[in-house]
Amino acid sequence: MEALHIQAPPRPADLYLMNSLSYKFRATIVSSSAKFRCFCTVSSPNSTIEELILTPKSRRKSVSKTNGKARAKVSDTQLKENWLDSLSSPFAETLLRPNGEIADVGRSDSDSRWVIGVDPDVSGALALLKNDDFGCNAQVFDSPHLKVLVGRRIRRRLDAKSIVQLLKSFDAPVGTTAYLEQSTPYPQDGKQGWWGGGFGYGLWIGILVATGFSVIPVPSSVWKNEFKLSGIRSSKDDSREAASTLFPSLSSSLMRKKDHGRAEALLIAAYGKGLKMPTNSLDTLNELTAEIGKNGRMVDASA
Amino acid sequence: MEALHIQAPPRPADLYLMNSLSYKFRATIVSSSAKFRCFCTVSSPNSTIEELILTPKSRRKSVSKTNGKARAKVSDTQLKENWLDSLSSPFAETLLRPNGEIADVGRSDSDSRWVIGVDPDVSGALALLKNDDFGCNAQVFDSPHLKVLVGRRIRRRLDAKSIVQLLKSFDAPVGTTAYLEQSTPYPQDGKQGWWGGGFGYGLWIGILVATGFSVIPVPSSVWKNEFKLSGIRSSKDDSREAASTLFPSLSSSLMRKKDHGRAEALLIAAYGKGLKMPTNSLDTLNELTAEIGKNGRMVDASA
Repeated sequence: MEALHIQAPPRPADLYLMNSLSYKFRATIVSSSAKFRCFCTVSSPNSTIEELILTPKSRRKSVSKTNGKARAKVSDTQLKENWLDSLSSPFAETLLRPNGEIADVGRSDSDSRWVIGVDPDVSGALALLKNDDFGCNAQVFDSPHLKVLVGRRIRRRLDAKSIVQLLKSFDAPVGTTAYLEQSTPYPQDGKQGWWGGGFGYGLWIGILVATGFSVIPVPSSVWKNEFKLSGIRSSKDDSREAASTLFPSLSSSLMRKKDHGRAEALLIAAYGKGLKMPTNSLDTLNELTAEIGKNGRMVDASA
Repeated sequence: MEALHIQAPPRPADLYLMNSLSYKFRATIVSSSAKFRCFCTVSSPNSTIEELILTPKSRRKSVSKTNGKARAKVSDTQLKENWLDSLSSPFAETLLRPNGEIADVGRSDSDSRWVIGVDPDVSGALALLKNDDFGCNAQVFDSPHLKVLVGRRIRRRLDAKSIVQLLKSFDAPVGTTAYLEQSTPYPQDGKQGWWGGGFGYGLWIGILVATGFSVIPVPSSVWKNEFKLSGIRSSKDDSREAASTLFPSLSSSLMRKKDHGRAEALLIAAYGKGLKMPTNSLDTLNELTAEIGKNGRMVDASA
């Protein structure tokens, strides 16, 4: 194989992705095929026609901030914005046609009321909330997982293929927001626990972004505070109780202790959708809290 | 919202995914919309028309093995097969049409000579080897990454959106095999290292499977042994040396110490494609090894 580096104008069909890639990585080309010629243009610093392609505001910012000396001056806010941009749907860019018209390339449906909530643990779940002609629908799915051999031990792992098939089956609008609980392993957890937390978090981010969702990580403290699940009311039982209060028609699916993943996925989605706990329910929960304070842990509803 | 559980025949359009989902998870339905009626059928134990859909052999095995009592008897081999199946392309299933004809639904191109190799570290890279009319082409890309704020510290993270855009730009056949270095954190690494190893590994698996690649994890010892990169010749410099020998036209991209990620991605892809080191090169490398043994570390080619 002989190295052959060629600069040539891009093919129109390649414009959209090329611009998205241009500042991120460099292709090393060892061929003169048409595709590589075009792709080679990706790493060209010269101004070419593909620069007519519009990039979202946040991306433009991240480009300017992540190039050269500016990178050293990047602010905490910009770092967070860059991180969120890297988790957004790759298919929601716009293309400026030669006639000046802006073409929509899979932009997300701004009217969409679809929201996904995910508890990324291997015992976690995915909740889907959506408005349609019949009103607001809520569904919750246990995360597909399987047993794998790690050394001589059998461990549970998330099933990537089945998660992809589940998400595809929703036929959700491109750019639908998926609220994902941020991975925050406990210091007292072992290294296997830290590895597993990183694996589940990375797997969900990878699958969600690649299937066209825009991911927003949510620290557990944030969604739990929204539903008064802090302090004495911070157990998994309390999460099931709160989810049953918010989604009474799903209470039969939240009765077992092991249903806490379903409850947390529903509450994360509810947080993302801005659902509020009914005031009278809050009073009930506060009374329940007081009761728990007096009598110890709440009895499992399925017991 | 009132719970409404309805069993109804599925819509043909829903058949393909439904069958793939049927044994993996259960949907909790709180709506009577058409889609949910169909989806509800997913978890129905009754024999319905969608069971005409064929599932690949390995999937059929994993179904039988992961249902009921059989699960306890699953063998180590079956566990590994199930794990590989969960990492295979979700878009390579077949559909039996009503007339009995088998329709191909995105089956991978068995003649494809495309192979991808990935070093999943944040300092890693992706290599693409493919045969086309011009012969065998090799490309290598540094993994897109960005700086993020973790607590008060700035850390580097893989950029999911840009990785998806890079993979999509290849326009690779559905089911193309991606060889991914297995995550094996060192016992002496800290918990942050274990979390990061799990995150990168999970993110790459999620993105690759969701974009239609079939992932095969490869322990580093396996691909390194293939290229005699063990014992005294196991450093990152040795990997760069071996990759330059195998891909001489890319040697200018492998000159710096920090190019080891590119070298390892190329070698992982070369292992997957079954490329062999030229015998005379092996002799040279063995002499080099002896030289290194006498004079210490090899000098960085870029120095």
